[in-house]
Amino acid sequence: MEKFRIKEATVIYLEKPDLKEPILIEGLPGVGNVGKLAAEHLIDEIKAKKFAEIYSSDFPPQVFVNPDGTIRLVKNELYYWKGEGKAKDLIILTGDYQGLSSKGQYLLAEAVLDIVEQFGTKMIFTLGGYGTGLEIEKPRVIGAATDKELVEELKKHGVIFKGEEGGGIIGASGLLLGLGKLRNMKGICLMGETSGYIVDPNSAREVIKVLTEMLGIKISFEKLDEKAEEVKRITDRIRSLEKALVEKEKKEDLRYIG
Amino acid sequence: MEKFRIKEATVIYLEKPDLKEPILIEGLPGVGNVGKLAAEHLIDEIKAKKFAEIYSSDFPPQVFVNPDGTIRLVKNELYYWKGEGKAKDLIILTGDYQGLSSKGQYLLAEAVLDIVEQFGTKMIFTLGGYGTGLEIEKPRVIGAATDKELVEELKKHGVIFKGEEGGGIIGASGLLLGLGKLRNMKGICLMGETSGYIVDPNSAREVIKVLTEMLGIKISFEKLDEKAEEVKRITDRIRSLEKALVEKEKKEDLRYIG
Amino acid sequence: MEKFRIKEATVIYLEKPDLKEPILIEGLPGVGNVGKLAAEHLIDEIKAKKFAEIYSSDFPPQVFVNPDGTIRLVKNELYYWKGEGKAKDLIILTGDYQGLSSKGQYLLAEAVLDIVEQFGTKMIFTLGGYGTGLEIEKPRVIGAATDKELVEELKKHGVIFKGEEGGGIIGASGLLLGLGKLRNMKGICLMGETSGYIVDPNSAREVIKVLTEMLGIKISFEKLDEKAEEVKRITDRIRSLEKALVEKEKKEDLRYIG
Amino acid sequence: MEKFRIKEATVIYLEKPDLKEPILIEGLPGVGNVGKLAAEHLIDEIKAKKFAEIYSSDFPPQVFVNPDGTIRLVKNELYYWKGEGKAKDLIILTGDYQGLSSKGQYLLAEAVLDIVEQFGTKMIFTLGGYGTGLEIEKPRVIGAATDKELVEELKKHGVIFKGEEGGGIIGASGLLLGLGKLRNMKGICLMGETSGYIVDPNSAREVIKVLTEMLGIKISFEKLDEKAEEVKRITDRIRSLEKALVEKEKKEDLRYIG
Repeated sequence: MEKFRIKEATVIYLEKPDLKEPILIEGLPGVGNVGKLAAEHLIDEIKAKKFAEIYSSDFPPQVFVNPDGTIRLVKNELYYWKGEGKAKDLIILTGDYQGLSSKGQYLLAEAVLDIVEQFGTKMIFTLGGYGTGLEIEKPRVIGAATDKELVEELKKHGVIFKGEEGGGIIGASGLLLGLGKLRNMKGICLMGETSGYIVDPNSAREVIKVLTEMLGIKISFEKLDEKAEEVKRITDRIRSLEKALVEKEKKEDLRYIG
Repeated sequence: MEKFRIKEATVIYLEKPDLKEPILIEGLPGVGNVGKLAAEHLIDEIKAKKFAEIYSSDFPPQVFVNPDGTIRLVKNELYYWKGEGKAKDLIILTGDYQGLSSKGQYLLAEAVLDIVEQFGTKMIFTLGGYGTGLEIEKPRVIGAATDKELVEELKKHGVIFKGEEGGGIIGASGLLLGLGKLRNMKGICLMGETSGYIVDPNSAREVIKVLTEMLGIKISFEKLDEKAEEVKRITDRIRSLEKALVEKEKKEDLRYIG
Repeated sequence: MEKFRIKEATVIYLEKPDLKEPILIEGLPGVGNVGKLAAEHLIDEIKAKKFAEIYSSDFPPQVFVNPDGTIRLVKNELYYWKGEGKAKDLIILTGDYQGLSSKGQYLLAEAVLDIVEQFGTKMIFTLGGYGTGLEIEKPRVIGAATDKELVEELKKHGVIFKGEEGGGIIGASGLLLGLGKLRNMKGICLMGETSGYIVDPNSAREVIKVLTEMLGIKISFEKLDEKAEEVKRITDRIRSLEKALVEKEKKEDLRYIG
Repeated sequence: MEKFRIKEATVIYLEKPDLKEPILIEGLPGVGNVGKLAAEHLIDEIKAKKFAEIYSSDFPPQVFVNPDGTIRLVKNELYYWKGEGKAKDLIILTGDYQGLSSKGQYLLAEAVLDIVEQFGTKMIFTLGGYGTGLEIEKPRVIGAATDKELVEELKKHGVIFKGEEGGGIIGASGLLLGLGKLRNMKGICLMGETSGYIVDPNSAREVIKVLTEMLGIKISFEKLDEKAEEVKRITDRIRSLEKALVEKEKKEDLRYIG
C-alpha cells in the first residue's frame, strides 16, 4: 500500500472485482442501527467479499481497539457478491460511521456513487430504521423510491407508504437515492420500524426479508433471530428490574402512611 | 442529465429562457415562512415556469418523500415569467432550505447572482418575515433598500422604516441585497410583520400586495386568504382548548378550597 | 466596482494611499467593545480616511439597516492617516465583526498583514478589553508585546503586566501579533480592564491615552468622556431602580410579618 | 524567516537534523494531560532539541502571554534526540493544542507523518491518559498497537489490554497509529489510567516508565515525582477543606436540633 493522505473521501481498493451492473445495497449506522445490522447479516450469510475501504477526514479522528489489542482506523467498507442463478451481482456498503458534517455526507455519497458507477450500477437499495418512539412488536417496513413503478412493486411486497407530505430521509440512505437519481440510477429505501432507543435486530430482519425477497436471494435469519432474542432478554430483564423497584418504593411509601 | 458532483452551489438548467433584465424575487424559508409563502403564491398565480435547480452540499443531507412515495433531493429552484404589458420579466427564487453555514450562505447567494447577472438583472426584491414575538392582526410591511430613492418610493406604498441604528437582516434576504449592491444591482427587502411562532400566510399576503403593486402585476389573493383562514382556525382551536383547560384547572382548585 | 465573489477575505480598495512604514492599529469588536471604541475614537479625532473594505464569508451572512433605511453588508474597514510632525503614518483596522471560525480568524489576520506589509508596516498595536468580571472605576491598561524591549517601554507608560504563565489573547488582537511576529513585525497589545458586561468607553479612553502617548499624537477625549458619562447614567439608573425594587420587596415582606 | 500564511498545517523548520529511522513519540494535551506531561518530561531529561514548529488554522486563534510579557502563537513542536548506545534516534511531538475539528486532526496527523517519513520513521509511540472517572492510586498502563507481535511485547512490560470490543482512541494518539499503519509504520499507544479530573503526573510517570524501558533509555523521574507530590498536596488540601466544611455544617445542623 502506497503513501497517501486521507481526504474527505479516500478509497483504497483491495481488489477490482469483475461485476455486471451490480445492485448497490447500503446499510450504515443510524436509527436503531437497523441498516448496519441488515447489511452485515447479508454480508455474513451470502459470504460477500470486501474489495474496498473508504476513509474520510469527515469521520471522527478515531481508531477502534480490537479484542486482541490491535487498532484499526474508522472506515466504511464495500463488499461484493457474484449473483447466483437469477440473482444479480451485489455491492454492499457498510461501516463504522456516516460523515459528521453535511458537506462530508454529500462528498462520501458521491464517492460511493462514483465507485459503483464504474461497475455499471443502475439500482440502489438503502436500508435504515424508521424511528417511532414506541416499542414495536411487529415492525413494518416503510418504503420510499425514486420512481412510481418501484413504489407499486414495493407495495406488492407488503411495504408501507406514509402518504402525508413532508417526511424526510436524512443521511446516506436518503442522499444515495437523491444523488443517484441525478445520475439516472433507480433506488429504493427500506426502513424498518423501530423504537429508536435500542439496537434492533428484530427490525433489521423485516428489512432484510423484503430485500432478499426482491433480490431473489434465500438466506437464513437464524443469527438475526438470536440477536433479537438476546436484545429481548436484556430489555425484559431491565423491565422486570424497573418493576421490582417501583413495587419496593410503593411498599416503602405504605410504611410511611401505615 | 449528465453525471456530476454536488458542490456548495451546483446549478442544473432545465431550460435557458430568453429574458430581458429580469427582476429577481427571492422568497426562501425563514421567520414565519413569509418569504417562501409569498414567492410560492406569486409563482402559482402568474404561472411562472421552473428553469433551474440549485443543489448544495450546504443544504441538509436529506431527501423529502412525496405523498406518492417518491423522493426528491432538497434544493432551491428558479422560476421565470415573461412580463406582460408594462410588467417586466421576473426570476423567482424559492426552495426547501437556506444554506446551513455562513460560508454556504455567501456561496449560494453569489451563485444566484451569477445566474441572474447573465440575464442582465439590475433589480432585486427579497421577501421575508419580521419577527415581533407578538401576534399581529394587521401586519405592516417593513422595508430596507440599497438606495435612498428606493426608500422614498417604498414609503409611498405604505412600507414602514425602523429608524433606529443597528437593525440587521440575516440570511439570503439580506445577503442578496448586500452582495448585489457590490455588483451595482439595486434591491429592496420587504418584511411582513409576524409573530415568528407560526407559518403566516396573513403576513405573506401583505408582502405580496406591496410587491405586485410595485411590479404592476394584478393577482388574486384568494388562496393566501384561504391558507390564512385555515391557520386562524387552527390557532383559534388551540386557544379555546387552552382556555377550557385553564378553567377546568380553576374549578379543580376551587374543590380543594371548598 | 467590478463583479467579484466574496471569499474568506476579499479586499476592495477605494484608494491606494502613499504611506511610509505605517503603524497598524487594530480595534475590532470584543470584550466591552473596548478595542472598537478606541479605534473609532482615534479615526474620528485624527480624521483618518477609509481606503479599503474587507468582506468575508466568515462574517455572519447579514446586512445592517442604516437609520435612513438603506442597507450595507457587514465588513471590516481600513483607514489611513498621514503622520504629522514626528508622528508616523497610521493604518487603522476596525469593523462590524471578527471572523466566526478559527480558520476564518487566521485567514482574515493574514489578509490584513498582507495589505499592511505592502505599505512596509513593521509595527502593530492591537487594542482590546481585559475582562475582570467586576466593575472597574479606574481601569488599568494590561499589556503584552512581541519583544522584551517593548515590554520595558510599555512599563514606562504605566502599562501593567500579569506575570503568571498561561494567560492568552484570543482573536484578532492576539493573532495579528502572533502572525505578525512570524513576518518579523513587532507588536504591542493594549487591553483596558473592563467588567465585560457593558460597552465600556471609560476603558477605551485609558487604552487610547497610552496609545496616543506612545505614538506622539495629541487628541481630545471629550467624546469618549461623553459616552462614558452616558453609560454611567444608564448603569446608575438601572442600579437605583434595582435598589428601589429591593426596598419595595423588603417593605412587602415586613407587612407579611407585621 | 520568510513570509508565509498559516494553513491547516504549516511546518517551519529551525534545523534539519540528520536522523536514522527515528522513532516518533507523541504527547499532546488530552485526558489528564498525561501524554503532554510524559513527552515534556522526556524532552527535559534527555535534553532533546527543538527542530520544527507546526502552526495551524485549526488551532484556536490565540497567543499565549509568557511570564515576561512577551507573546507566542499557539503551536505544536517537534524535538529530536540522537540515540546513545543501543537507543535509537527519537522525534518527540508535543504542543499547546490538538486540532479543533475532525478534518484538522486528520490534516495535522498526516503533516506529522509526512515529516517523520522523510527521516525514515518506521515506529510510533503515542502517549495519553485513560479516563476512569475514579481516583487511581496505582495507575496501570493500558495498551493498543498496530500488530499482534507488539501487543505480546507490551504484555511483557506489564501493559494491560482491555479485551472487550468497541473501545476507541480519539485524537492524535489514535490517528497517528491508524494513519501510520496505512503507511506501513508500526505503532504503540500507551495510556496511563487517570481520573480525568486533574492534571496527572503520577499517571504520566507510569507511561514514561514503560516507554523508556522499551526504548532502552534511563532517565530520572524526580521532577515528575515532585509534580505528583505537588498535585497530591493540592488535592489533599481541597479534600480536608471539604471535610472541614461538611463537619461545620453538621455542627450547625445540630444546633438547630439542640
